[in-house]
Amino acid sequence: MKSALLGIFIVFFSSTLIAQTKDSVLIRKMFEEEFHNGKSYSQLEYLCKKIGGRLSGSPQAEAAVNWAFKSLKSEGFDSVWLQPVMVPHWVRGEREQAYVLSNGKKTELSICALGNSVGTPKSGLKAKVIEVKTFEELRAMSDESVKGKIVYFSRPFPDNVLSCGSAYGNTVNQRGQGPIEAAKKGAIGVIVRSMTHAFDDFPHTGATNYKDSIPKVPGCAVSTVDAVNLSDILKANPNAELYFRQTCEMLPDVLSYNVVAEIKGTEFPNEYVIVGGHLDSWDNGEGAHDDGAGTVQSMNALRLILHSGIKPKRSIRAVLFMNEENGLKGGLKYAELAESNKEKHIAAIETDAGGFMPRHIGFTLKKDELKKYTAWQELLGPYGVQAFDENGGGADIGPLRKQGTTLIGYHPDGQKYFDYHHTSNDTFDKVHKRELQFGTVVLASLVYLISEYGL
Amino acid sequence: MKSALLGIFIVFFSSTLIAQTKDSVLIRKMFEEEFHNGKSYSQLEYLCKKIGGRLSGSPQAEAAVNWAFKSLKSEGFDSVWLQPVMVPHWVRGEREQAYVLSNGKKTELSICALGNSVGTPKSGLKAKVIEVKTFEELRAMSDESVKGKIVYFSRPFPDNVLSCGSAYGNTVNQRGQGPIEAAKKGAIGVIVRSMTHAFDDFPHTGATNYKDSIPKVPGCAVSTVDAVNLSDILKANPNAELYFRQTCEMLPDVLSYNVVAEIKGTEFPNEYVIVGGHLDSWDNGEGAHDDGAGTVQSMNALRLILHSGIKPKRSIRAVLFMNEENGLKGGLKYAELAESNKEKHIAAIETDAGGFMPRHIGFTLKKDELKKYTAWQELLGPYGVQAFDENGGGADIGPLRKQGTTLIGYHPDGQKYFDYHHTSNDTFDKVHKRELQFGTVVLASLVYLISEYGL
Repeated sequence: MKSALLGIFIVFFSSTLIAQTKDSVLIRKMFEEEFHNGKSYSQLEYLCKKIGGRLSGSPQAEAAVNWAFKSLKSEGFDSVWLQPVMVPHWVRGEREQAYVLSNGKKTELSICALGNSVGTPKSGLKAKVIEVKTFEELRAMSDESVKGKIVYFSRPFPDNVLSCGSAYGNTVNQRGQGPIEAAKKGAIGVIVRSMTHAFDDFPHTGATNYKDSIPKVPGCAVSTVDAVNLSDILKANPNAELYFRQTCEMLPDVLSYNVVAEIKGTEFPNEYVIVGGHLDSWDNGEGAHDDGAGTVQSMNALRLILHSGIKPKRSIRAVLFMNEENGLKGGLKYAELAESNKEKHIAAIETDAGGFMPRHIGFTLKKDELKKYTAWQELLGPYGVQAFDENGGGADIGPLRKQGTTLIGYHPDGQKYFDYHHTSNDTFDKVHKRELQFGTVVLASLVYLISEYGL
Repeated sequence: MKSALLGIFIVFFSSTLIAQTKDSVLIRKMFEEEFHNGKSYSQLEYLCKKIGGRLSGSPQAEAAVNWAFKSLKSEGFDSVWLQPVMVPHWVRGEREQAYVLSNGKKTELSICALGNSVGTPKSGLKAKVIEVKTFEELRAMSDESVKGKIVYFSRPFPDNVLSCGSAYGNTVNQRGQGPIEAAKKGAIGVIVRSMTHAFDDFPHTGATNYKDSIPKVPGCAVSTVDAVNLSDILKANPNAELYFRQTCEMLPDVLSYNVVAEIKGTEFPNEYVIVGGHLDSWDNGEGAHDDGAGTVQSMNALRLILHSGIKPKRSIRAVLFMNEENGLKGGLKYAELAESNKEKHIAAIETDAGGFMPRHIGFTLKKDELKKYTAWQELLGPYGVQAFDENGGGADIGPLRKQGTTLIGYHPDGQKYFDYHHTSNDTFDKVHKRELQFGTVVLASLVYLISEYGL
């Protein structure tokens, strides 16, 4: 009995070892391909420099769709296609202007309109300011004291957090819900401190929301440096007036597309493993980290698998989602089609956290279930993966959750992401070639492992 | 028997858990202190912007010693002192010039003298060029074909390496030993491709070596962009001539200092745990990542321990070494004094790999011995430490090895380090505040853990 058990153990252990070795060789092969012949970086350069910021509905978004389709087509995948989807078409208009007026002195502020915001009157908006750090604080005020004023949400990113994502989570409701909360109290406009630890002159845009039942008031974001300036001025003179002007507007929805490339699975062709990022970006920068990086990593993860001669057992796809930034219509459409086409998505990986060095991979799995994948984690360790954890999910892949798909978030090192996020500073030169490439390799490896062994 | 064993297990397990919790609380306390009141970043700014590049023997190096002494003194450590040490005094002289002349066409090259190099004749040096990738290639040539020429060592950083440090290890002998090898064959000068993956216009300096028995020929480094230009020109015309001029020289040694701060151990005062970086830097940049980061991290690791109310059981020191870059006299002096003062150094931690996010901690321990520290690794995981490994050591702490000290290398994420290393581009703005601070916290934690539990 003992020796039989030992035998089983040896067989099991050896086969595991052989698989590990085979996998580690394949991953190394993909690494070599990426670092010798990879296209992640040159494609990102094209997307950022030749196309640029590409908000849904813009000519640049259309150009990005065409470019991605053509690029993927040229690789020789089994199929490449477009998924039509209607998307919002918000335009920023003229360059925003703002200043604060205190005791006859004008101090200009660096602002930008929040995405989806309505514009101000043509001549701009001028009013006194109520500064608050939380919605609770605002709600506790009398309507009278807020009415006709501009609400300034000034809660900063907390410093004492390990993850900048949690700092974002802690503050972003000011941007997303600020105009609704302010309008409920009778305010006529909103200015929000930018969502970042960085202390600089770049205002950070990002989507805001309205409710049909509540007046739509214009919202803008102010750079962190000018946020402090504004607070200082208001402290010295609570009657200081803020002026801002933005001509942004929401136009009728337009037709756009998700771009999908596929390699058919050899054994389980109707089981899908997808990796995706979003092809749209904010208009003010080049969408380099957000999410040009994820776009080219998804494209090249598939490319590395193809060029390393891997025949995946399950079908694998690179999905470039449209309209993550201000509507999520692409992610919703993808899940809707997956459902109606009865495609069983066993795993969806999202890369939308910047082109930095790999760190963590989050799964919508319990800690106990994650233990099964320790060997995978060890395979990816040399390429920068520190740990698998329970922080699975992602905006674009979220809608797949209802068909039971395991959602996987790629989380590279995140200390710098919000320095660039949604600003004119999110440009190609901020992405490090090798760091981007490590991400492509890790994503390709993960797609390969799941397509080979399932979850 | 069973229940006795269980009892032992429970007692052991509980006491371990209690220690873990106490330590995790203390580490979190240090994190809060650094991120609320830390001085790492502001001190780095001072060192880079008010003092700047500080090569051994320079007025800036003297200013750095005075500043560090004063800063540490003001913290209230048990003692702060200077260790006198004679150091080399090399000066770069006038701005270096270089061009390549082919068929009457001059192409300028971006170069800098290698540290410790002799100058060219006042009027410069002009000769034909022999391009080689390895010493073997050079040695295989006839003396006749090399004599009177300039040897161009052009082996690039390999792309397909996981760690940039290994790319450096693979190529840096061209810089360190190139002039010796070239002179052996009768060459009159050396030009070396810069040690970096970056493709840009910054030449990278760094120490080169001579032997008294071999003629000292001048050596310079060329930027990677111009390295490729030079290779292209030589390919088209092997008779192209290279001109370069540098007025650098080695002056007599001067008196300088290591700076040391100490908190006395409460239980084992003659057992030492030190953390150090080097206070000197190359002259061409601001020495921000190399090694202003390590300097302020060492100073602030001690500061966090003091300000968190920790009374270390073993004596702990921050050591700022002088002359790491072109002589290592500070590291040698420190070990000599430790020996003669009979101070038992149980661990020496070196931080000299940039102010990036923590990644690995290397120990001069075997893999089996490292397993004992799994709990520590887990404590440091949230602050960025992926793994403890066997890559212990460091230039400045190396001389302590002979007294049996465990050498510990702090290895932050290394993909960008050699982009800046030894260039005029190694400036304060390249260091990310939060990343630097995470390093300080990890180093403070490690010093605390070793001082508390030994090794």
